[in-house]
Amino acid sequence: MNDHSPSRTGGRAARRAARAAPLADHLRPIRAGMSGGQYTPLSDADVLRIHTAALDALERIGLADAPPSGVAHLTAAGAALGDDGRIRFPRALVEDTIAKANRTLTLHSRDGLHDLDLSGTRVHYGTAGAAVHMVEPDGRSYRESTVQDLHDAARICDRLDNIHFVQRPMVCRDIFDNFEMDMNSVYACTSGTTKHVGVSFTDPAFVAPAIEMLHLIAGGEAAWRERPFVSNSNCFVVPPMKFATESCLVMEACIKHGMPVLLLSAGMSGATAPGSIAGAIVQAVAECLAGLVYVHAVQPGAPAIFGTWPFDLDLRTGSMTGGSGEQALLTAGCAQMHRFYDLPGGAAAGIADSKLPDMQAGWEQMCSNVMAGLSGLNMVYEAAGMHASLLGFCHESLIIGDDLIGQAMRCVRGIEVTDETMALDQMEAVCMGGPGHYLGTAETLGRMEMDNVYPALGDRTSPKEWAERGKPDLIARATERKNEILSERSAARFDPALDAAIRAKFNIHLPA
Amino acid sequence: MNDHSPSRTGGRAARRAARAAPLADHLRPIRAGMSGGQYTPLSDADVLRIHTAALDALERIGLADAPPSGVAHLTAAGAALGDDGRIRFPRALVEDTIAKANRTLTLHSRDGLHDLDLSGTRVHYGTAGAAVHMVEPDGRSYRESTVQDLHDAARICDRLDNIHFVQRPMVCRDIFDNFEMDMNSVYACTSGTTKHVGVSFTDPAFVAPAIEMLHLIAGGEAAWRERPFVSNSNCFVVPPMKFATESCLVMEACIKHGMPVLLLSAGMSGATAPGSIAGAIVQAVAECLAGLVYVHAVQPGAPAIFGTWPFDLDLRTGSMTGGSGEQALLTAGCAQMHRFYDLPGGAAAGIADSKLPDMQAGWEQMCSNVMAGLSGLNMVYEAAGMHASLLGFCHESLIIGDDLIGQAMRCVRGIEVTDETMALDQMEAVCMGGPGHYLGTAETLGRMEMDNVYPALGDRTSPKEWAERGKPDLIARATERKNEILSERSAARFDPALDAAIRAKFNIHLPA
Repeated sequence: MNDHSPSRTGGRAARRAARAAPLADHLRPIRAGMSGGQYTPLSDADVLRIHTAALDALERIGLADAPPSGVAHLTAAGAALGDDGRIRFPRALVEDTIAKANRTLTLHSRDGLHDLDLSGTRVHYGTAGAAVHMVEPDGRSYRESTVQDLHDAARICDRLDNIHFVQRPMVCRDIFDNFEMDMNSVYACTSGTTKHVGVSFTDPAFVAPAIEMLHLIAGGEAAWRERPFVSNSNCFVVPPMKFATESCLVMEACIKHGMPVLLLSAGMSGATAPGSIAGAIVQAVAECLAGLVYVHAVQPGAPAIFGTWPFDLDLRTGSMTGGSGEQALLTAGCAQMHRFYDLPGGAAAGIADSKLPDMQAGWEQMCSNVMAGLSGLNMVYEAAGMHASLLGFCHESLIIGDDLIGQAMRCVRGIEVTDETMALDQMEAVCMGGPGHYLGTAETLGRMEMDNVYPALGDRTSPKEWAERGKPDLIARATERKNEILSERSAARFDPALDAAIRAKFNIHLPA
Repeated sequence: MNDHSPSRTGGRAARRAARAAPLADHLRPIRAGMSGGQYTPLSDADVLRIHTAALDALERIGLADAPPSGVAHLTAAGAALGDDGRIRFPRALVEDTIAKANRTLTLHSRDGLHDLDLSGTRVHYGTAGAAVHMVEPDGRSYRESTVQDLHDAARICDRLDNIHFVQRPMVCRDIFDNFEMDMNSVYACTSGTTKHVGVSFTDPAFVAPAIEMLHLIAGGEAAWRERPFVSNSNCFVVPPMKFATESCLVMEACIKHGMPVLLLSAGMSGATAPGSIAGAIVQAVAECLAGLVYVHAVQPGAPAIFGTWPFDLDLRTGSMTGGSGEQALLTAGCAQMHRFYDLPGGAAAGIADSKLPDMQAGWEQMCSNVMAGLSGLNMVYEAAGMHASLLGFCHESLIIGDDLIGQAMRCVRGIEVTDETMALDQMEAVCMGGPGHYLGTAETLGRMEMDNVYPALGDRTSPKEWAERGKPDLIARATERKNEILSERSAARFDPALDAAIRAKFNIHLPA
């Protein structure tokens, strides 16, 4: 084969044509739900020791502060209420619950096109959190986050291929009434994206009205119950080893209304959890096992996500650090425990301590995101846009994060070893009488689109080309993309009749 | 324990004192040579298939273009020279060489304090490459790299804890004569750092004079041979499957003079190596096995590093991409092959495609660096400072990279699971009648310094504190640190008599 032969030119034309048409979903190099698990931070023996220690903790220490309804459910299931008010869990009860719990869970999307299958080591990335600031990178400034910011974030996520779900990443600081804030959070997210949404509720009494809105959106209770497209992010514990009384009541209400629950244990290693990584994992596992027993005591088989979210602390200052290597290990270690239990699980990754989308943010977000994916974490929460150790959310960073997560997902996909990919015959043909290189071979062109991930904003030009293009700035390009997305009409918008119906019942702060 | 008790105050004072004094090396949370290997991108079966395919390639395809001396060495060892000029390797010869090769290799430092033990899955990070530009981030500009830049890089590396060796990362573009360039590269690196240095030679005839300089520095041939503190980065192949004739002669000369050789196979996946990750690994492994046979045919037991360095190509443009997920997988897959052979190995990671130390550079550098470390790669080359897909080197990025690599190393260290770290007793004491938190406990304070890595430039302040401090810029802080280091007198400087002796024999371009 000659470099200047027509066949090579033909290859180029074919390559151009291939680039022009988007690939069918099953041919894309990466997609939601690819399987990880090539990385095992814990040995099998370590996993067993952590499991045993968690069972010991539940049996010896137990959890305080369950609400009366929780005490009733848990003691009926076989847990014991001590004189000290703590609920203790016999090993057999916990082991039995693990054995009976769902091995898989589908988190539904509103459109049916973005359902998430939480089984095995399938990996999904998305947003989450409760940031109180928006980061505006052009002015290097922090300001309070609003319901419009939240809606915009949902709209942006809706257009990013590698953001698979939208758990509310920030708080609407411009809505002062808790009820209105919760209702508007549900509205801002669900009207911005058809992907699965996660929200939290401040008060157990807010669940029923939210469900009313969701019934409207779904087209009735039956449709909602068949495909619940919103889950409840529920901080059911106040670590160490105390139930969060109100949140437990929220959880009970969500279970009743068919909403999947994320059992979120967010201990801070060195403050509300042990300062060692292993200790923080033991406590998080113990707490989530208690939550799992609770859920199954309320309703056997209710959908729940094992949400061990231990966070790391900078022990010098007592401030949280979400961007550290220790944080990446906390999350990856938890993911391995989820695999051991074979339960749908989630944890936090992708958090930057950096205040801006700079080099530090890049390495912090990649470190925990790629390790979470490789460890086979089903739900990687807070994966994009999060700065200042969860205090700030940034739309530009979210958009750039889509590239970053795409790369992490390529790593999760891993290395396919087959006779075809090992390419011995091709090597022989190329080296012995062939052109002496692999450029433009059918095999190379064939791999171009199906095997390789290309960044949307990440720049791979040479210094010369880069200079000729005016040295494009990553952040400025992300801002352009943001403005582009937000100026388009969103496909996730509610139809006018539905929107009017919702607005008739709820005080929606976003303009119609 | 009360928050305001004297014992807590005492803890704070102790904590402050602990921060003031540097930790003894064995107590530091991270250090050179920690063991990785928790990440295995290839299954055992895949590893065997790749090994078998590499043996097939050596038997069926072999390598062209060996120099006459190489043909003599290799055929004497049992390889066959075909009518097509290719040297083919019987499986038994390759397997026998693998069995006899060194399982360990010490790369010496000039001061004896930074020796690298390349055995098992011990991980070391350092620089490497042949960048032709310096990146000046403040002006967003690229300019030609000089011998002063190289020397400054070595001096900076000498002061960075997490840069364990200094392979020449850039070319002295201000020295036009190849001989003078090579001699000055050796001088610029070795006079800037006492850590292990790697260099390359343009011509086999340049090895002997360089060795003369190294004998002067070492204090004689015997001292040099006992502790060779410079190794030769040797591109002994021109992929696919051709020996680089001149470089092979350089290699033979280095072996003769007791200089360890990095057998560097730098195929470009999709151009000079198959476009699939598995295929590029097969070819790199085959080429390095051929190199290993060559080394042992020249001198059994000569120190060599298995340098499978396949690079990734952006197939849309035909340009290299070193910052991709595919690159991280190429390197991690190679590391696993090194483990399979139990041979000291190295590959490239930490390369940014980005032109500047921005968010893209951060995620690109972390992705491959942390995956290389977790896969147990002995020598992670090009780990810091590298931009524009290897074309640009940046001092600021190098300094920031020390933080990034420190974090990757913390991940390599992993999770210690012991009764102490699982902290069940502590949990019980804290929860049942204790303070209800772990702040200020002896265990927490004890872990503060020995378990946790704190970034030097990475910023973990809150948005408020960050604003109060004037929103410090990461790059500007790195420039400050660079100026600080370069304004200090370097401990690695040669003493004046030695320096004069070198300058008497060589035209040293750096000012005395």
